[in-house]
Amino acid sequence: MAGWEQLAQEKRDSVNGLIPQEWRLEHIPSVEEQRDVTGRYVQQFLSEREVEITETDAVGIAAKTTAGDWSAVEVTKAFCHRAAIAHQLLNCLHEIFFDAAIEDAKQLDDFYAQYNRPLGPLHGVPVSLKDQFHVKGVETTMGYVGWIGTFQGKKDTGKEKVFESEMVRELRELGAVLYCKTSVPHTLMAGETVNNIIGYTLNPKNRNLSAGGSSGGEGALIGLRGSPIGLGTDIGGSIRIPAAFNGLYGIRPSTGRLPYEGMANSMDGQSTVLSVVGPLATTVPSLRLMIKSLLSQEPWLHDPMVNELPWRDEQEKQILDLVRPASKGGKLAFGVLKHDGAVAPQPPVRRAIEMVVKTLEGLGHEIIEWKPPSHKPINDLALKTWFFDGGTDIIGAFSLSGEPVSKQIGGAFGDKPFEQAKASDIAAVNVAKRELQKEYMEYWNSTKDLTSTGRPVDAIISPVAPFPAARREKYNYYGYTVWVNLLDYTSVVVPVTLADKNVDKVDTDYQPMNDIDKATQENYDPEIYDGAHVAVQLVGRRLQEEKMLAIAEYLGNALRSQ
Amino acid sequence: MAGWEQLAQEKRDSVNGLIPQEWRLEHIPSVEEQRDVTGRYVQQFLSEREVEITETDAVGIAAKTTAGDWSAVEVTKAFCHRAAIAHQLLNCLHEIFFDAAIEDAKQLDDFYAQYNRPLGPLHGVPVSLKDQFHVKGVETTMGYVGWIGTFQGKKDTGKEKVFESEMVRELRELGAVLYCKTSVPHTLMAGETVNNIIGYTLNPKNRNLSAGGSSGGEGALIGLRGSPIGLGTDIGGSIRIPAAFNGLYGIRPSTGRLPYEGMANSMDGQSTVLSVVGPLATTVPSLRLMIKSLLSQEPWLHDPMVNELPWRDEQEKQILDLVRPASKGGKLAFGVLKHDGAVAPQPPVRRAIEMVVKTLEGLGHEIIEWKPPSHKPINDLALKTWFFDGGTDIIGAFSLSGEPVSKQIGGAFGDKPFEQAKASDIAAVNVAKRELQKEYMEYWNSTKDLTSTGRPVDAIISPVAPFPAARREKYNYYGYTVWVNLLDYTSVVVPVTLADKNVDKVDTDYQPMNDIDKATQENYDPEIYDGAHVAVQLVGRRLQEEKMLAIAEYLGNALRSQ
Repeated sequence: MAGWEQLAQEKRDSVNGLIPQEWRLEHIPSVEEQRDVTGRYVQQFLSEREVEITETDAVGIAAKTTAGDWSAVEVTKAFCHRAAIAHQLLNCLHEIFFDAAIEDAKQLDDFYAQYNRPLGPLHGVPVSLKDQFHVKGVETTMGYVGWIGTFQGKKDTGKEKVFESEMVRELRELGAVLYCKTSVPHTLMAGETVNNIIGYTLNPKNRNLSAGGSSGGEGALIGLRGSPIGLGTDIGGSIRIPAAFNGLYGIRPSTGRLPYEGMANSMDGQSTVLSVVGPLATTVPSLRLMIKSLLSQEPWLHDPMVNELPWRDEQEKQILDLVRPASKGGKLAFGVLKHDGAVAPQPPVRRAIEMVVKTLEGLGHEIIEWKPPSHKPINDLALKTWFFDGGTDIIGAFSLSGEPVSKQIGGAFGDKPFEQAKASDIAAVNVAKRELQKEYMEYWNSTKDLTSTGRPVDAIISPVAPFPAARREKYNYYGYTVWVNLLDYTSVVVPVTLADKNVDKVDTDYQPMNDIDKATQENYDPEIYDGAHVAVQLVGRRLQEEKMLAIAEYLGNALRSQ
Repeated sequence: MAGWEQLAQEKRDSVNGLIPQEWRLEHIPSVEEQRDVTGRYVQQFLSEREVEITETDAVGIAAKTTAGDWSAVEVTKAFCHRAAIAHQLLNCLHEIFFDAAIEDAKQLDDFYAQYNRPLGPLHGVPVSLKDQFHVKGVETTMGYVGWIGTFQGKKDTGKEKVFESEMVRELRELGAVLYCKTSVPHTLMAGETVNNIIGYTLNPKNRNLSAGGSSGGEGALIGLRGSPIGLGTDIGGSIRIPAAFNGLYGIRPSTGRLPYEGMANSMDGQSTVLSVVGPLATTVPSLRLMIKSLLSQEPWLHDPMVNELPWRDEQEKQILDLVRPASKGGKLAFGVLKHDGAVAPQPPVRRAIEMVVKTLEGLGHEIIEWKPPSHKPINDLALKTWFFDGGTDIIGAFSLSGEPVSKQIGGAFGDKPFEQAKASDIAAVNVAKRELQKEYMEYWNSTKDLTSTGRPVDAIISPVAPFPAARREKYNYYGYTVWVNLLDYTSVVVPVTLADKNVDKVDTDYQPMNDIDKATQENYDPEIYDGAHVAVQLVGRRLQEEKMLAIAEYLGNALRSQ
């Protein structure tokens, strides 16, 4: 066994060892035995009370815990239990700190008993964190074997297991209970979650499929209700992909809205396309609760990258006024992107888009075809930024331990760093980015002449990926998420339906436009995909978090009430 | 005569040739003959009515023009006349388009006559622009001979004399009249304004001294009241320096507040420390009018770098409530930076700081000593960003014509580009910047324990430069402005007093800390400086434009009423 294998196994064993004996499963079923481990399957391991608690959304939990109806300890224990089961079935955790969480929950209960009020709006709400957050008492490996026992790959910094990220500090102030950190693909640059420490993170709804990435552990864990809400990050789709793959709502806020301060990252300091942090949850009100709560902490006073932009009720209200049935003639306008001109969505995704269009049209809203400037140069430019350093950062992280790179990532970077971009190249990319943003923005402005609302479209309806979820090692196209990152738009993922082998037939007439398009269509197998979640994203302009959450909630409710 | 000299002279002649014969001065006095060309000196060349108009601030003008009391044509002609005189005395213009301005003004008057209302809040207000703005009908040279007859150094782009910057479009929508573009040092990277086309821009209050830079033409022109308000840019002090040197108010907004879209720049695409655009004017209400007007155009819909942050009346009101005499116990808290630990301010600047402290203390406000993290690494890091490309952009611009680099700039860049920073280097600088910002921010937060207001200090009182204005080729230290750019703070320059040889004696006891400190003290000559403007800057946190303007207006009024 190579040195890195030994290290990885010790780490894996030590984390798994933190699962209490009574929560361990005797048998982990194969995919063939149990494709879908959600719902009744997972419930069999839980008490009725635990099911009740863990199947309540974050807003519902907060209502109980802040009113003193549920104790923080009871809620925390229920989620720890369910998370432990999720990890055994899906490989979705990097760090477990149930004991610290229960201790924190006790203190919250004591606080409540003493003052007869909650500590904050998230009092007693368990919150899971992607393994880029630093939390005292545990490590941050980001899936790198070489980061075990270090602080971001460096030894003896004095920060190991002590330093906490800014948002962690805020979550504690708000009363949240932190209890686990979730899995990521090493490098963070993949739509599947795999690394040499915990292996591969599976999709709880359909274990043939990936849980997505890079916030894949969040997706799997929340998907199985092992967490009511969690925080991921997104530089090319990494919040939206796992949200979509797991039937969750997830928001990619624009840069400068929520604090990234003090988090671990890949290629930190690359500033052309920034990773952003945002929540994934089972309902939109949960996402809103999280963002409003974080903004109430005035993160702009503690993170130099955050803009002073408190929660704007009026932006939400503008949408609510338009969609309220009583508002005569009030309506929204949407652009629909059915195909980006490069890779066609698979049949279930096409159907989801159609369902959304019909639902919105049925409610009297307007849909126009979205014919923007080509997404190809936008996606190509974003890709350039991730190779600015020639792989130096990423290859350096692997070389710390000598561990191999997963197949999902290896091809992109190779074994040795290649030539770095120089300042002039990077400046040229920055200028090109600004020009593409400007061009797209003016296209968006121009749609006011195409709608009957007199406004440009309120949101774009777009696939998140060309597939409901990726099959293992088959995530071959990121073009439906990356454009949003380069343009820095707000995007909210909305779950729509489930893949259905009886409805979503292979499109045998499809004429592929290119090799990726061909492979994507070939990867669609109705049998394998049956039962998988299918989602869309609603894309809004920069810093439109309030507006986009309002529209996403409206659409989600409309889809459910059909 | 070298080719570049010929080109420069033709350009100079063609611009000067646009000054109507009747506005030409017979004699340009030497500095010895006429040190101060403001006030009575310049008034002799103007009619009483022209003096009345041009000595009204932008708010006063807008009040008259938007009410239909003054015609746009009369106002425009008066400012064209005074600007023409200013240019002859100071070399402050790069482009003159008085005819187009008067034509635009006529259309504004026609509009008013037809609709009996102004086109916008800046109806008929002349606005001068630094020569980075693209305006149809004229060139943008930025002082580079090699840019003559091109668009940003490139020929046959189709944009020459046609393309307009986003803010120009907005200014026209608001009813502003554009009539001239003002001088800059070639490269924009200097606190004095000099180039091979127009030569050296002088300070109207004291022609021994520089008008400042890089928005030096704006400073000189508005200083002589050849413009009521103008727009400059600031990457290392370039709005604040000319504002301070010319007795003006000027604001460096934080990045993302006002639109830079479609402007020419040096080293475009360098994204670590961004240049920002902001107004200079004779009064704070003028600055506020400009910013409010621009924000009313929703620039975030037309510039991808602008955040959706409309004017926030409530932030202004918070300050007004605190300083209103009726508000019992309401007070502000300031930090005062008398010396940055590297270079001591000259005696007039020291006195100005003391005047501000005493004035504020006399009004019941609290002043604490500002003891922040050292500014040296902050300034050093900013400097690195300007050399990322090894001088490639700047040396390339000079090489287009073969013109020589001015002494103010030449030393910094040399003749040939040196090695560029690579992606990893730039990423490391970006991380270091964020860490310095975080450290400074937490120092600022910590001052809440030092004030009696219970809040961190509201603003920092700081010199803008160690001297009232630079003597020619003696701008040897930028440390008092650059830290603000790296930290991305809001800063407003407030004029305080005039240098007085009878009061501001040489400090013969001063023990210099280093060579720059020594030279700075030696450069102070009471005779030469006598009568020069002396200013301070009030530095606020990021994106605090409303708050900082309110404090600056309050301080300015208090200083004047003493």
